[in-house]
Amino acid sequence: MKDELEKCFEFILEVEKLKAVQRRVKPLGLDRYENSAEHSWQAALMALVLAKFGNESVNVERVVKMMLVHDIGEIDADDVFFFDETGRLDAKEKELAAMKRIFGILPEEKAAELFALWDEFENGTSTEAKFARAIDRVMPVLQNLYNNKQSWTENGVTKEQILTKTAYIGDGSAILWEMIAAKIEKAFE
Amino acid sequence: MKDELEKCFEFILEVEKLKAVQRRVKPLGLDRYENSAEHSWQAALMALVLAKFGNESVNVERVVKMMLVHDIGEIDADDVFFFDETGRLDAKEKELAAMKRIFGILPEEKAAELFALWDEFENGTSTEAKFARAIDRVMPVLQNLYNNKQSWTENGVTKEQILTKTAYIGDGSAILWEMIAAKIEKAFE
Repeated sequence: MKDELEKCFEFILEVEKLKAVQRRVKPLGLDRYENSAEHSWQAALMALVLAKFGNESVNVERVVKMMLVHDIGEIDADDVFFFDETGRLDAKEKELAAMKRIFGILPEEKAAELFALWDEFENGTSTEAKFARAIDRVMPVLQNLYNNKQSWTENGVTKEQILTKTAYIGDGSAILWEMIAAKIEKAFE
Repeated sequence: MKDELEKCFEFILEVEKLKAVQRRVKPLGLDRYENSAEHSWQAALMALVLAKFGNESVNVERVVKMMLVHDIGEIDADDVFFFDETGRLDAKEKELAAMKRIFGILPEEKAAELFALWDEFENGTSTEAKFARAIDRVMPVLQNLYNNKQSWTENGVTKEQILTKTAYIGDGSAILWEMIAAKIEKAFE
């Protein structure tokens, strides 16, 4: 038991590093970039709040757990800007290796559970994975919409890119995508 | 449906402010103080990882949800140092008012659900509340143990204070408290 607990401590101290991974968005009202740890919290909370708007009935607890682990691979792979397609392909392999390394710190059973959650989020086609990916994508869009398009402007992202590349939000929640797409249109008027 | 979604957006943008609430602990390897949003993520993840070490069988999903909401009241009440007893009494009322205000932004049913989670964490005696409080308390203790007692040193906290005031970790997990207490003793040798 104590050996297992020591492994859990080691894991939780290792994931401290996610607090140092910088994203492209600034939290509303703050003059600094967001980190992936605080984003993970907000995305998990958002999943809890928006669960009923999924296209299909979702197991919200599984979605919440996915959100807690979905970015941990960035500790080794770093956050790659969503609109950087080449960078994202490279990052995918690095993230897989990172997940194996970091979850590998945990006792075996727990490592397998968390890896399965991450894998489902990353590669899965389940109702929960689609909903989780929609939430993960909606979060920075909302932040941009209410923060003068900060990261879009800083990175020269066009309305067309946003509408095309984030349309998969609708695979998780059609009504959410309908509202968000209208807000994007309006923001670029 | 759209009205409800707008309320959820407003809520999720309001809780952005938790990213600006500063705690007394610095994340390992970073020269800045931790904020309550990233702490909430790590505490939720830790609950997921340590669930099996609870004194009783816990509903881990409910504990995870408690961790996601447990600090939101700090948006209005601010984080009060754990060892500041007078400050914590004052903060309790402020936090209650804050929770009512902030959850009140949400559609009624969801507001009631999140408020109940917070209330259980704050005032409850359920297995889940005891375990959640143990996790919330263990997190900064671990950070201190592996970061040269940073916040304890900066705030002049003694070993006796720590051992007395954090002993309730054992109400959630006896084995966790046994290990942590030994580590605290060792850190002050």
